[in-house]
Amino acid sequence: MNPLFASDNVTSACPEVMDALIEANSGIASAYGDDEWSSILKTKLSEVFETEVEVYLAVTGTASNALALSALAPVFGKIYCHELSHINTDECGAPELFTGGAKLNPMKSVNGRIQADELAGIVRGSGNVHVTQPSVVSITQSCETGTLYQLEEIRKISKIAHDNKMSVHMDGARFANALVSLDVSPAEMTWKSGVDVVTLGGTKNGCLAAEAIIFLKPEMVGNFPFLHKRSGQLLSKMRFISSQLNAYVSDDVWIRNARHANSMAKILSEGLNHFSNIELAYPTESNEVFVYLPRDVIDYLNNSGYDINEEELDGKAVRFVTAWNTDLKDIENLLDKLAQKYS
Amino acid sequence: MNPLFASDNVTSACPEVMDALIEANSGIASAYGDDEWSSILKTKLSEVFETEVEVYLAVTGTASNALALSALAPVFGKIYCHELSHINTDECGAPELFTGGAKLNPMKSVNGRIQADELAGIVRGSGNVHVTQPSVVSITQSCETGTLYQLEEIRKISKIAHDNKMSVHMDGARFANALVSLDVSPAEMTWKSGVDVVTLGGTKNGCLAAEAIIFLKPEMVGNFPFLHKRSGQLLSKMRFISSQLNAYVSDDVWIRNARHANSMAKILSEGLNHFSNIELAYPTESNEVFVYLPRDVIDYLNNSGYDINEEELDGKAVRFVTAWNTDLKDIENLLDKLAQKYS
Amino acid sequence: MNPLFASDNVTSACPEVMDALIEANSGIASAYGDDEWSSILKTKLSEVFETEVEVYLAVTGTASNALALSALAPVFGKIYCHELSHINTDECGAPELFTGGAKLNPMKSVNGRIQADELAGIVRGSGNVHVTQPSVVSITQSCETGTLYQLEEIRKISKIAHDNKMSVHMDGARFANALVSLDVSPAEMTWKSGVDVVTLGGTKNGCLAAEAIIFLKPEMVGNFPFLHKRSGQLLSKMRFISSQLNAYVSDDVWIRNARHANSMAKILSEGLNHFSNIELAYPTESNEVFVYLPRDVIDYLNNSGYDINEEELDGKAVRFVTAWNTDLKDIENLLDKLAQKYS
Amino acid sequence: MNPLFASDNVTSACPEVMDALIEANSGIASAYGDDEWSSILKTKLSEVFETEVEVYLAVTGTASNALALSALAPVFGKIYCHELSHINTDECGAPELFTGGAKLNPMKSVNGRIQADELAGIVRGSGNVHVTQPSVVSITQSCETGTLYQLEEIRKISKIAHDNKMSVHMDGARFANALVSLDVSPAEMTWKSGVDVVTLGGTKNGCLAAEAIIFLKPEMVGNFPFLHKRSGQLLSKMRFISSQLNAYVSDDVWIRNARHANSMAKILSEGLNHFSNIELAYPTESNEVFVYLPRDVIDYLNNSGYDINEEELDGKAVRFVTAWNTDLKDIENLLDKLAQKYS
Repeated sequence: MNPLFASDNVTSACPEVMDALIEANSGIASAYGDDEWSSILKTKLSEVFETEVEVYLAVTGTASNALALSALAPVFGKIYCHELSHINTDECGAPELFTGGAKLNPMKSVNGRIQADELAGIVRGSGNVHVTQPSVVSITQSCETGTLYQLEEIRKISKIAHDNKMSVHMDGARFANALVSLDVSPAEMTWKSGVDVVTLGGTKNGCLAAEAIIFLKPEMVGNFPFLHKRSGQLLSKMRFISSQLNAYVSDDVWIRNARHANSMAKILSEGLNHFSNIELAYPTESNEVFVYLPRDVIDYLNNSGYDINEEELDGKAVRFVTAWNTDLKDIENLLDKLAQKYS
Repeated sequence: MNPLFASDNVTSACPEVMDALIEANSGIASAYGDDEWSSILKTKLSEVFETEVEVYLAVTGTASNALALSALAPVFGKIYCHELSHINTDECGAPELFTGGAKLNPMKSVNGRIQADELAGIVRGSGNVHVTQPSVVSITQSCETGTLYQLEEIRKISKIAHDNKMSVHMDGARFANALVSLDVSPAEMTWKSGVDVVTLGGTKNGCLAAEAIIFLKPEMVGNFPFLHKRSGQLLSKMRFISSQLNAYVSDDVWIRNARHANSMAKILSEGLNHFSNIELAYPTESNEVFVYLPRDVIDYLNNSGYDINEEELDGKAVRFVTAWNTDLKDIENLLDKLAQKYS
Repeated sequence: MNPLFASDNVTSACPEVMDALIEANSGIASAYGDDEWSSILKTKLSEVFETEVEVYLAVTGTASNALALSALAPVFGKIYCHELSHINTDECGAPELFTGGAKLNPMKSVNGRIQADELAGIVRGSGNVHVTQPSVVSITQSCETGTLYQLEEIRKISKIAHDNKMSVHMDGARFANALVSLDVSPAEMTWKSGVDVVTLGGTKNGCLAAEAIIFLKPEMVGNFPFLHKRSGQLLSKMRFISSQLNAYVSDDVWIRNARHANSMAKILSEGLNHFSNIELAYPTESNEVFVYLPRDVIDYLNNSGYDINEEELDGKAVRFVTAWNTDLKDIENLLDKLAQKYS
Repeated sequence: MNPLFASDNVTSACPEVMDALIEANSGIASAYGDDEWSSILKTKLSEVFETEVEVYLAVTGTASNALALSALAPVFGKIYCHELSHINTDECGAPELFTGGAKLNPMKSVNGRIQADELAGIVRGSGNVHVTQPSVVSITQSCETGTLYQLEEIRKISKIAHDNKMSVHMDGARFANALVSLDVSPAEMTWKSGVDVVTLGGTKNGCLAAEAIIFLKPEMVGNFPFLHKRSGQLLSKMRFISSQLNAYVSDDVWIRNARHANSMAKILSEGLNHFSNIELAYPTESNEVFVYLPRDVIDYLNNSGYDINEEELDGKAVRFVTAWNTDLKDIENLLDKLAQKYS
């Protein structure tokens, strides 16, 4: 079976990242992030985000998100997130482990995105010892349905969060895809819109395994280095993660990778939407395409060598994900295959 | 400052591992360990250990040890270990986090190794609800003082553990160094001597970041896959870790790397011991050399560009660690430098 | 301010319980539940539930519920419950603490009760490492809206739970109130309908502080005694809790207490419902009455010495709770007061 | 079997406490500590300790100690305590649970008491992410061997703690016994000697179940109310705990109770020590007597109806505990029994 389109994490790493990794593999270097590559990364990301940031690294999104939340929520905290958010559905309880038991408060809203108004209506209990304390609002950009928060929405959500003394976390597993789609700057999409901590994903967009927890307000770091260490994400040879991200955010690598993925998704989305029997589940705004596929079509494709599954979202939809190196020919093949079925 | 000899984690990865990583970076592959490289690794490690094993990967020793313990100890469990063991002193509480609060019971014994007799004398409380329940004995091979458990010692410890319904964990951060020094097989040093789970380190001996939690009795895996996932160590692009370890345990790469490191340590140890003012803190049995250095000698070396610190062990000693690629010339330079001081 | 009707936990203990407590305060007794009163309690509860049960005690519902869940859910478990359930809204994260991070999956259903069909539709992910594992269904009887699960509903829910290898927990903080209202036996309402563990509340219905975690299938106890101890609920002088519950379930004390509370609630409910401006938020089926009160009426009552607050349920409603010793005159006074307002 | 002398927790409650409990059982009262009895208790304890204190209640020493530690240690914290301390040996991991994984660092010192000099020698690692962070020093007064810290010792230990930015916790399960033995004031034995938080035990000295976590520096309370709630120790009918402690610390009840227990211990200790075959394991300084008893004497006593066990301390010793209501005749009977054996 061919996991093509199954996810952007089935891809290899891009040449720029791989070259940087190979380059970093030379000589001795101080361990645990006290190396040159890690130092450069902090500087680079401060430039990219146009503000002094503090950076900690992880090798999975599971860990980077859970760690970010552990920095922002006390053990008795409450974290508002969308019901479909990855932290709520796909981490086997990692946020609960890393935070020591904070509670996720899942929200239902259209298109997989938290609505500011709805958030405003449910935040409560501050100071009441019987209730987990409102601590964090976590949004995913681009989100789990492949759609995007507009800056205006982020600002509204952040305002509600901050008005209620909560922090704002952005799960940026597909941060770059959102960036190019909205055509905004990293600063605009984060701290200028009220985001406090972003977990920047590299793995899905060209890295081998590299995620960054970025504190946009360094004073919020607090005791995080200890939480980071005891979580098992402080690599001794940290240069091998830092170097990946150095290459990733240099020379527009991440932007180019994301742009390609998004444009491939657009072609795929339009191609699929063209079939009368296929309906888009969500608008295609980044590199994920969700469609409602009839059961027999799913079977037909799987019999043709694909590995396609329905996911449980608002309803059951099939997800196709494009990546930094998606080949246009693979999209054409898929569409041809469907055309044969529907002809 | 030059972290030469500071640890074996300041080194780069060896060519065989790097080549394997580059080779793995091609095409698409199923995520989360459902890839060819991971499948091969399981087969290879079963061959290496001469028994069917189950394998889970991690990128730090912190995580692999804490995860292994979480598989073996309940939240109310007690883990017997040496006071100087890495899990007790250097993980900022990771074992407590991953196990959900199990208690480490540190033991003082000579040369950093648990003594079987001492262990037998302190195991108690089984079935008594007031007492954390004896669950695991964890030993490090080679251990934190650079000395080795003889197979006979491991067997005795394992017997006591099993007689008390406890499991035996081996922290194998420097497993290969022990293997070549004892000149025994992986099977002999582990399950044939009673070890149930070994955490095999690759990072310090030639990998970039690769550690394996190896269940030598597959039936002990239980719910481990869920613990593994929620700990943030289930990489999406797992092939990049599996491929490292594939190369590492193939063609005697790990053995050759460890043999070199050990032989360099021997030369360094003998060279240091030759000075009348320098005393070995522990016998040099693997790739770590511990010596008592007068304060002025430490200062002298640091002023000469080294980065040397005393560590708190039984007393304060200075640790020199050799690695798979230690250059004999660097040892000679160090000894020359000392000779100048002492001449 | 007068907390009359604020909750059933503002009441004193009933004479039978108090007498038993005083009687137990005599002579020496073995500690930690190894006493005569605790032994008798186990026998009594086995009789009451018409099956051999295992019993552990706690002094708060917070603890007894969280403990019960910790016996049934692994750290990576998922617990299905109603969104309004006490374990989800009022324990400041105790279930997460005691279970080591299991996740509550809140469900919205009418009248504060889980619907079997809805449950069937959302249970998924068993065996998928990315997903917290379906482990427990927790229902509250009588539930947080004062309504009741019919036996038929409990059986349906239990069947779905067991078909999916989950356990069934019943939060019985107001167990007796449900019992008398449904006019069924403890056995019928629990294990005969598929409930595995019930947390039986005594505190709200005549005890000082006494809650029991009752394993209706003793083989499910497993390691619970250790979880119980380390939670801080294993009292040294346990006889003082056991004796309360001994009196509570003897001579129909709990039944009579609950019957009185329920009948008072019925009178209050009908009285309130009689006013055209007051609407019942839920049917009154046990000892809690929920009404939608206009804001000015709330203010009017509070200015008259009551202490009334709106609670966030499906909408905002005011809760009146009656208890084992509610005085009919107090109800009449309240209704008179309202009549003056509305006349 | 007769648990006489087995512990001070086998006793009943004293009349003053029981009367107060009965008195509190009247009328309605606000729940969760917002009642008159709890308010009075705070005032009373502020007077008793001669400083404004904050007070939270619990029903077990397990919980009160673990809660106190959770207020003082972060999840990555280290807590220095004696190896024989109750928090280290008898709580089945409660401190680890409540603190979210903080590590206890057990120390061996003579007579079960931490030595200031030894403490000074082992505190290290502050700021080092690899190491659990020094956070708390916990001492027990009177301690688990029945001996006492002199004020001078407490002051020295506190100074070292504070110099290292750690807090000082006193486990006062037998606080009153220490108080009368040292003939000092509560203020002198706590905050005037540097103690920050004391867990005051009532249960062993005349209460049914009542323990207080007393913050001697109210500004250290921080988020404790939430930790308290989610631990399951915030009783709804809190007046039933507060009233016990109100009586306990009023009219010298606790002092008189402790004085009696101590004087009985002194008589028992001298009586036992009189036998040439019986040796005191520790000096008798409060209400616990530890003796080395030959095995045949233990068997002889148990055959005579006692229930005597050796405990594992530095060596194996038998503990006899006296209480507020120990009958001199019971001591005489025991000594007579031994005299018969030895005559």
